[in-house]
Amino acid sequence: MIYKRKVQFYETDAQGVVHHSNYPRYFEEARGYYLEKIGYPYEKIRNDLNTDIVLLELQIRYKKALYFGDSFEIKLGISDMDKIFFSFDYSVLKGDTVIATGRTKHACLNRKTRKIISIPHILRLKLNGT
Amino acid sequence: MIYKRKVQFYETDAQGVVHHSNYPRYFEEARGYYLEKIGYPYEKIRNDLNTDIVLLELQIRYKKALYFGDSFEIKLGISDMDKIFFSFDYSVLKGDTVIATGRTKHACLNRKTRKIISIPHILRLKLNGT
Amino acid sequence: MIYKRKVQFYETDAQGVVHHSNYPRYFEEARGYYLEKIGYPYEKIRNDLNTDIVLLELQIRYKKALYFGDSFEIKLGISDMDKIFFSFDYSVLKGDTVIATGRTKHACLNRKTRKIISIPHILRLKLNGT
Amino acid sequence: MIYKRKVQFYETDAQGVVHHSNYPRYFEEARGYYLEKIGYPYEKIRNDLNTDIVLLELQIRYKKALYFGDSFEIKLGISDMDKIFFSFDYSVLKGDTVIATGRTKHACLNRKTRKIISIPHILRLKLNGT
Repeated sequence: MIYKRKVQFYETDAQGVVHHSNYPRYFEEARGYYLEKIGYPYEKIRNDLNTDIVLLELQIRYKKALYFGDSFEIKLGISDMDKIFFSFDYSVLKGDTVIATGRTKHACLNRKTRKIISIPHILRLKLNGT
Repeated sequence: MIYKRKVQFYETDAQGVVHHSNYPRYFEEARGYYLEKIGYPYEKIRNDLNTDIVLLELQIRYKKALYFGDSFEIKLGISDMDKIFFSFDYSVLKGDTVIATGRTKHACLNRKTRKIISIPHILRLKLNGT
Repeated sequence: MIYKRKVQFYETDAQGVVHHSNYPRYFEEARGYYLEKIGYPYEKIRNDLNTDIVLLELQIRYKKALYFGDSFEIKLGISDMDKIFFSFDYSVLKGDTVIATGRTKHACLNRKTRKIISIPHILRLKLNGT
Repeated sequence: MIYKRKVQFYETDAQGVVHHSNYPRYFEEARGYYLEKIGYPYEKIRNDLNTDIVLLELQIRYKKALYFGDSFEIKLGISDMDKIFFSFDYSVLKGDTVIATGRTKHACLNRKTRKIISIPHILRLKLNGT
């Protein structure tokens, strides 16, 4: 799936490029878009499944810079999933140039107990694209 | 009262200066420091008084820029208070140079009803420095 | 002119609403959109006119809250302009509800000297919608 | 080395905890503190050595949450260094509890050519604590 975005001025830093702490935010936006597109936006996950998705691990490799006004794409998909954990892979692209790659690992929490639970069956099916 | 701070790199933008959206954050930090110093930190206001402080208005005049690594001070105090509303005035100073001035206007909410209430008597006394 | 936006999760705070320091960022996005639509995006202003636009004053009145996932609009326009200064007025709207209103005051700098200059004639015409 | 910090309200999100995108910022603050303590603050690296330090890789494992008002420590040190690359390891601690761990990988750029260079000899010595 592909999420499109433009660099905002307030995301740049004094080296003239997008500050690295914005990439986790871009990934979060892209995940939100992904969940929406598969029919399970956050609020549905929260309300229908009584579940919060949490972030356990984050990895980013920065290869090139993004500049104010740049249009870019984030290509993302599920790279790994078992009963408990699932991961997204991301490529940040400006045209054909790979700006950065990343991975995030997640689990589901019961919203009341705040304990990790198995990924709800229906969500697993959706994440798998089935 | 005076709150001291240093500019972080992630607060700068591509013009090489602190991005203007960080000043409301600096003011928030300074208010938190102020409330702590008068013996009513946020958590005490929340827990003992069952009250949230909300921001109603914000004004900032930007005169000079702050740069990465700059040490600066925020001079702040209560500029106005009646039964319901109170305001803080701020001066952002680098040495003797006025970088910016600002004002924020606040009210108190009952945490359960989320309705505006009179400023709790004890908090009003503390804010007045009496 | 109207700029449309959605609230991102990372823009919320522990009171469950959009943190107030994001509104200056929303205004900046809306201004960028405005300048693009009148045919003078920042880079054209910078490169063709050798000019930087700076922010001198910011005012915001917060009336209601925005929540994660909310879609909202920013209605903006030039509210004031003379030879040196110009201001934008903003209304943040969720449906028919006014969430916040704001104003920003700006001037133009010569990019080399960093001195305030008259608003370039062509930019003034564009800002005036003529 | 240990860097101390307090959670600011604007760093929290609607789950009531510090948003994950603030950890790279905390690491950046801690690195700045580290470089200062070894006698090579950024501006000295920039001005004396004509060098910019860039971030190539970022990894974070989130184990527990931080809350508004929490005081925490970041324990950091050089975990790896060769002629070109060096890495920092981080532990975010609240008392004895490990909140998160992280690693960042860096290289040095010549400020004019923007090309990767060997780590300047004097900087390598300082980073090694020798």
